[in-house]
Amino acid sequence: MKTVLVTGAAGFIGGHTLQRLATRGYKVEAVSRVAHPSSDAVCWRKADILDIDTVEKLIYEVRPTHLLHLAWITEHGIYWNAPENVEWLIASLKLLELFGRAGGERAVGLGTCAEYDWSAPPPFCEATTPLLPRNLYGAAKNSLSLMQSQIGRHFHFKQAWCRPFFLYGPGENPSRLVPSLACSLLRGESTVCRDPNAIRDFLHVNDIAEAIATVLDSDYEGAVNLSSGHGTEIGEIANMLSILVGRPTAISHDRNAHDGGSLVGDASVLTSLGFLPKFDLRSGLADTVEWWRDRLRAAPEGC
Amino acid sequence: MKTVLVTGAAGFIGGHTLQRLATRGYKVEAVSRVAHPSSDAVCWRKADILDIDTVEKLIYEVRPTHLLHLAWITEHGIYWNAPENVEWLIASLKLLELFGRAGGERAVGLGTCAEYDWSAPPPFCEATTPLLPRNLYGAAKNSLSLMQSQIGRHFHFKQAWCRPFFLYGPGENPSRLVPSLACSLLRGESTVCRDPNAIRDFLHVNDIAEAIATVLDSDYEGAVNLSSGHGTEIGEIANMLSILVGRPTAISHDRNAHDGGSLVGDASVLTSLGFLPKFDLRSGLADTVEWWRDRLRAAPEGC
Repeated sequence: MKTVLVTGAAGFIGGHTLQRLATRGYKVEAVSRVAHPSSDAVCWRKADILDIDTVEKLIYEVRPTHLLHLAWITEHGIYWNAPENVEWLIASLKLLELFGRAGGERAVGLGTCAEYDWSAPPPFCEATTPLLPRNLYGAAKNSLSLMQSQIGRHFHFKQAWCRPFFLYGPGENPSRLVPSLACSLLRGESTVCRDPNAIRDFLHVNDIAEAIATVLDSDYEGAVNLSSGHGTEIGEIANMLSILVGRPTAISHDRNAHDGGSLVGDASVLTSLGFLPKFDLRSGLADTVEWWRDRLRAAPEGC
Repeated sequence: MKTVLVTGAAGFIGGHTLQRLATRGYKVEAVSRVAHPSSDAVCWRKADILDIDTVEKLIYEVRPTHLLHLAWITEHGIYWNAPENVEWLIASLKLLELFGRAGGERAVGLGTCAEYDWSAPPPFCEATTPLLPRNLYGAAKNSLSLMQSQIGRHFHFKQAWCRPFFLYGPGENPSRLVPSLACSLLRGESTVCRDPNAIRDFLHVNDIAEAIATVLDSDYEGAVNLSSGHGTEIGEIANMLSILVGRPTAISHDRNAHDGGSLVGDASVLTSLGFLPKFDLRSGLADTVEWWRDRLRAAPEGC
């Protein structure tokens, strides 16, 4: 029996991942700082990953064959440069070492496109684009990636490292780009798109979750971009959202915006594992707008 | 007053560094797991860097303006792949964070040439040679380098990262290359040089220590190779040692040795800081042979 321990299981990505893993035949042990009721598909465990004693107990109770480590500080506007990234790196190193010592077989970690040198020409490739993190978040994730590969080698477990680019979808923190624009539009407000020239590579969170499940279920070792391979201007995303909501003139673009650069991930490694996204950007944004529309109907202050 | 906290102060490099720092006007606070008597130049403190509570107490007692972090697992034949590298990385991250929180101004860490991709063409340059550590030691050091630069940025301290290539000199662990050859020769034994074709970049430990003091005393930020810029075949070093001892035919070369590659560090950054080595390889090896000769006279079993 494959048993996967999922940290950050109640988070934006984690929440979309658990059922997929159960469907693929994993016994799913989901970890969160907050208690959740278990189901047939998912056994929830309340634990703080930053507490080493708790993690040790957890690993020896669960005896996971697989580890999907999603937990990290993700507080919007804070996490890029928060010193808590050091604590999360330390906790993650200990988690990986304990997983190895307990006989774990395969670990998948969650990195970030901020590990790459953002001044490199897009699309960013796992094998050839230089890594040059420029903040604590990117540095801590990149450090963990280096260490995961060597800890895995030492303890003889396989490992892969997912580097998500940009994501959106139901359940996202409402202060982030797509929900903040969508909710403004749905509330009838006018708003400004601040970074319309920036080109970003977006995937719907359902596709991100399916991609992660695909990586976990494969034998692939090393880094893999979670990306579509295609860039879209943020201004174009704002336009698509305003058309979807039926208010095509409600978003103005900041005309003084600087060139926001192009952050696009080559998706060929991910594609080679058999993954294809279900959503294109238009259908994914439509799905997201409908989710927020329902949510606002139920609780108008909810976003 | 500049106060420098030196970890690993009783080690091979640390031992050659302390007096130099005192001469440059630093109040020297030297840390070792073993007690040492303090002098006018050096205040010794017995502490285990792997114990976070001890480190916290130490930082708040000493209030260092400067940190020279040399301590690490260095057990010959073990340290490349020992899981203790994870513990040292964790302890070093905490040390840097505490140093930053306590108002530290400048940190210098000790990396390794094993951070570089050894298949890259020599000489290895700080700015252009890809980093690709292939063992736990190299990965942990490279991770710490990434994190040091970002922890420094967060807490507003300056930082540099020394990458020593190969070193030798008085006091080295006798199981390592130069002392093992020198002692065999001095004892009248015949011996085999196993890796004669490998090209390596060697500096005498006195020069390494002076280079580290130069880096600490400078405003330079980022990585700096501690290297001579010149490669020498290991077989040539063996020949020089055998001539110095007066037994020119006592070392045979392994004729089946593989191509050991070339690990040479570009020294132009270090040179730009005003450092020039005092020893060339011949005078440095002569100095080393004399040290071992004295040592063997005093204690024939000592090497």
